[in-house]
Amino acid sequence: MSLRLQRLVVLGVGLIGGSAALALKSRGAVGEVVGVGRTRANLDEALRAGVIDRALTLEDRWTDEVSRADCVLVAAPVAQFPALFRAMAPALPERAWVTDAGSTKQEVVAAARAHLRDAFPRFVPAHPIAGTERSGAAAAFATLYEGRQVILTPEPDTDPAAVASVTALWEACGARVATLTAARHDSVFAAVSHFPHMLAAAYMAGIAGRPDAGEVTSYAGTGFRDVTRIAAASPEMWRDIGIANRAALLDEIAAFRGPLDALEAALRDGDASKLEALLAVAAWARRSWAAGREDRDAVE
Amino acid sequence: MSLRLQRLVVLGVGLIGGSAALALKSRGAVGEVVGVGRTRANLDEALRAGVIDRALTLEDRWTDEVSRADCVLVAAPVAQFPALFRAMAPALPERAWVTDAGSTKQEVVAAARAHLRDAFPRFVPAHPIAGTERSGAAAAFATLYEGRQVILTPEPDTDPAAVASVTALWEACGARVATLTAARHDSVFAAVSHFPHMLAAAYMAGIAGRPDAGEVTSYAGTGFRDVTRIAAASPEMWRDIGIANRAALLDEIAAFRGPLDALEAALRDGDASKLEALLAVAAWARRSWAAGREDRDAVE
Repeated sequence: MSLRLQRLVVLGVGLIGGSAALALKSRGAVGEVVGVGRTRANLDEALRAGVIDRALTLEDRWTDEVSRADCVLVAAPVAQFPALFRAMAPALPERAWVTDAGSTKQEVVAAARAHLRDAFPRFVPAHPIAGTERSGAAAAFATLYEGRQVILTPEPDTDPAAVASVTALWEACGARVATLTAARHDSVFAAVSHFPHMLAAAYMAGIAGRPDAGEVTSYAGTGFRDVTRIAAASPEMWRDIGIANRAALLDEIAAFRGPLDALEAALRDGDASKLEALLAVAAWARRSWAAGREDRDAVE
Repeated sequence: MSLRLQRLVVLGVGLIGGSAALALKSRGAVGEVVGVGRTRANLDEALRAGVIDRALTLEDRWTDEVSRADCVLVAAPVAQFPALFRAMAPALPERAWVTDAGSTKQEVVAAARAHLRDAFPRFVPAHPIAGTERSGAAAAFATLYEGRQVILTPEPDTDPAAVASVTALWEACGARVATLTAARHDSVFAAVSHFPHMLAAAYMAGIAGRPDAGEVTSYAGTGFRDVTRIAAASPEMWRDIGIANRAALLDEIAAFRGPLDALEAALRDGDASKLEALLAVAAWARRSWAAGREDRDAVE
């Protein structure tokens, strides 16, 4: 299905929303992009960079733009979703559909059901598996979604036509689209995304709290660089993800104490073979994962 | 000081020893490189790739080569150091000096003192802060040390002339040389290298142990890729590092439980501001570190 939008409204013009806008523009898949955001400075940056064609802050009458849109992309931090859904619901035209880019899905679905009300079937929850540690409109680029996955988590009452349109939108951005239930999505991403993020942040926060933090990190190499890269990402965005998906995250933290305790015991006992066994399982699993990836270049 | 070696003996021709040999050859800083290793297959690979000029296994009379060397680089896993030092001590000529590439230093220094005996002052302990997750001679490349740090940990009785020669050797490989005490080295690298490695491995081992490991990792993105990259490294090498530096590592694990517990408490209580405060400290510290790095390209 090929996509041609007259007017796309992007709520939250950061790395994620901005890159989607740029991708759709570069494919000629959209007429006009209207950006809505909290701060004028970021919107001006987005206008200068050609990410959006017009800009409104949340203080402006942005729901008037929704009433003339054929698609709304909600790409703000997830804690703002309930207020945004509530404000847009009365303005949303019958022909328009809504998608989002939130990293958690059960809370987003619950908020959409509560606040979009009659328009809920036209909302197709989505999570694009893409990002960098940078944020803001200035960080956006058209190829962010190239070859990446976007997970849709439609509900039983989601309109199949809306699912088809949202699939076409993310495919036009260059992504591959897959489908999970919202609950399974949240559990899977707690394991492979949200928890490793929290782990990197907890480690980095621990290092930052040392009196000799500056000296010790001056000796840090590429291992440190890679383990901690995502700890630089937006604290606000990850706070919202953490709170929204806290039940699954708490399960991951509890599960992680198993290998952490095993590692500590092996070191305390000087048990080289127990330590090597744990490291060997990890190395085997990581190498198998990399070998199985389609986008090998991204792995190496 | 410019360096010109007649004959370098490399004990352990993997990524680290092989890359040093290639770097010195590419600068014309060495006449002949003799490689000594455990397995014939890896040595043949090293010969084919031009990493070494001649090859002997540990079953051959490799100490005869030491007696004709002007430098010996010990680049085997650190658990093999005592046996290698013991075997080479009687053969080592007066003019020759020894360095190593072990990632821990107190145990290496103790082993060298015990087994090199009279030759101990000519041993200059070194730790090149470079590596990839690959291993073996086939992974070696001449520019591995370009712009990287090498930490020397000389003892009070280390010969200053040997320190000067070893400094020249690592600088000829393209590295910058710094000096720490062995104890401080081990504490610093437990914090910024060994512990994050163990953290990545513990996380990866936990994921690997799930019945749905294949499915969940099929959704993993760039965050997972980077956090886990080093978990693919040689289990044998990291087992030795872990055991050799276990006291400092146990301190790091104990310290890490602070931020891990704080994170868990913030999630359990749904305390968004406490969670954001932890994430903000981590993001600030990681961004400051990246901004302060000289090799910005390597950070981005």
